[in-house]
Amino acid sequence: MNAAINRQVRLAARPVGMPKESDFSLAEEPVPEPGPGQALVRVLYLSLDPYMRGRMSAAKSYAPPVAIGGVMTGGAVGEVVRSQARGLEPGDLVEGMFGWQEYALCRRGEARVLPASHHPPSYALGILGMPGATAYFGLLEVGRPRPGDTVVVSAASGAVGAAVGQIAKIGGCRVVGTVGSDEKAAYITDELGFDAAINYRTANDIGAALEEACPTGIDVYFDNVGGPTTDAVMERLAFKARVAVCGCIHHYNLTEPYAGPSHLRHILVNRACVQGFLVFDWLDRYPEAFARLAAWLDEGRMTYREHVIEGLENAPEGLGMLFEGRNFGKLVVKVAER
Amino acid sequence: MNAAINRQVRLAARPVGMPKESDFSLAEEPVPEPGPGQALVRVLYLSLDPYMRGRMSAAKSYAPPVAIGGVMTGGAVGEVVRSQARGLEPGDLVEGMFGWQEYALCRRGEARVLPASHHPPSYALGILGMPGATAYFGLLEVGRPRPGDTVVVSAASGAVGAAVGQIAKIGGCRVVGTVGSDEKAAYITDELGFDAAINYRTANDIGAALEEACPTGIDVYFDNVGGPTTDAVMERLAFKARVAVCGCIHHYNLTEPYAGPSHLRHILVNRACVQGFLVFDWLDRYPEAFARLAAWLDEGRMTYREHVIEGLENAPEGLGMLFEGRNFGKLVVKVAER
Repeated sequence: MNAAINRQVRLAARPVGMPKESDFSLAEEPVPEPGPGQALVRVLYLSLDPYMRGRMSAAKSYAPPVAIGGVMTGGAVGEVVRSQARGLEPGDLVEGMFGWQEYALCRRGEARVLPASHHPPSYALGILGMPGATAYFGLLEVGRPRPGDTVVVSAASGAVGAAVGQIAKIGGCRVVGTVGSDEKAAYITDELGFDAAINYRTANDIGAALEEACPTGIDVYFDNVGGPTTDAVMERLAFKARVAVCGCIHHYNLTEPYAGPSHLRHILVNRACVQGFLVFDWLDRYPEAFARLAAWLDEGRMTYREHVIEGLENAPEGLGMLFEGRNFGKLVVKVAER
Repeated sequence: MNAAINRQVRLAARPVGMPKESDFSLAEEPVPEPGPGQALVRVLYLSLDPYMRGRMSAAKSYAPPVAIGGVMTGGAVGEVVRSQARGLEPGDLVEGMFGWQEYALCRRGEARVLPASHHPPSYALGILGMPGATAYFGLLEVGRPRPGDTVVVSAASGAVGAAVGQIAKIGGCRVVGTVGSDEKAAYITDELGFDAAINYRTANDIGAALEEACPTGIDVYFDNVGGPTTDAVMERLAFKARVAVCGCIHHYNLTEPYAGPSHLRHILVNRACVQGFLVFDWLDRYPEAFARLAAWLDEGRMTYREHVIEGLENAPEGLGMLFEGRNFGKLVVKVAER
């Protein structure tokens, strides 16, 4: 790799349906020099996350879309290589929205300097990063589980779902996960300690499977997927159930809006609360989440699994894997060796 | 009318779709004698409300259904005629779930003794009763409007909707109502002070009409109807919008569950909260609601309209009117003269 070249993945076209290779383009630029107040970061790991589909689309979302021809947005971990920014020193490991590229400029407020840790730096993109905080705050602040509650989480082997289920177990809940393969089902029950798993691809009747796994109804639903899984959960809410709407990956690549049975009557009859949230609402409390999650990892009360793809140029294919559920664990792209 | 006879309307069959005359039967019983702890109430006004459709059905709801052959359930206002219950004296005006009948027995905790008031007793079935409390607590506790918010209420000329809109106006909000006729549209804007009205039956495009009436989006939606109106509102929620799910009358008489576009993405992107509620959750605070609503009526800050049907035997037809939106104002059946 020539250090003078910054390889990038740019958005070439707004995808229709599932993103495809031709929606991206590879580009090369000279590595930029940091100006006053800036640091140059060499990216080590890039995170691939479901929200990226929203950034590729011009539809209204909570953040503006990536411009056509712009570098794809994305969280990454890297090492400061040159700096004119106080508080960002060469050698520092940092996490920030560095995008799909090998080098990025950033300012002090745009990067989180990672504390010295025995955990791999890539964990700052997952369990000790945005997905971990999403699980922690979404479950505890929106889902508000109580010991004894039945908690259902969809996409349960993913970066967020696996953390949600394990936190709910620590909190004394019965936890049921929905996943897309028998291997993932075995993983969440055998390794993560979920009480039950439902493979939505092979279950003849998700509703009947939920009924069996949740005999007293569903007190908390942490939803990453939307679609028919959510429709089936909504029919089985318990009294005063809380639904934390974290994502609806099932909908993201549809060319028509997803339509299905109305949830209103279930919400009404059970006096349920369905709430959308974004982890940034708790930005000032991230240290609390990271400290507790790190402690639970250290105590062996949580397990974390990564799916590592090698090479920035394979990131577009990786995103496709994510939307098809072909990853197994938190998906990261290894961009460079430290 | 022979005082020794208690005429009743009973549930003859569980309706399929819209309730029809043959789902009810008229019956006569001797007027019962109150036993120890009981009072006999002569019913003056019976309330007709959308929730009654749920009681006619065996589907899961927040209350058990009326048995086939049982007296239809319903709130009513009456006069105590004989009593062996302390606190319920002959001549007292009382409100309670006396059912679709001319006479009912009740115990002390089952009837609210109405305070002396210059308001008609039937108001205790509407603005100074359950529908008024539903509007008051649903809007203020679940909708949580702030001055300057845009509040949309569906079924806006109905017992609950009219109160919701007027309370929101008192609270400094911009208020938009959806109704089913031009006459009702004129009523809510000209007499109730709503800022805009949308006739969902004649609007070519409810979404476009909402867009025009709510240029900054919808901060609070008080939903009585569900169906396509709600689907259109959900697409136009403002950031951190609150949706109070009070009813979904559009769905109640469908023979298939209502299906439509998913609301999840809108809930997610706007970090909205969609919450079902039941007014009984605030039972201990009813006096607060009734005191404020009565004061607003007296000060001329609120207006209340009733639609009175004469005769218990016409209650079934009245319920049909309600579901078809042919009533105009709070629907009550006058069962007897005081």
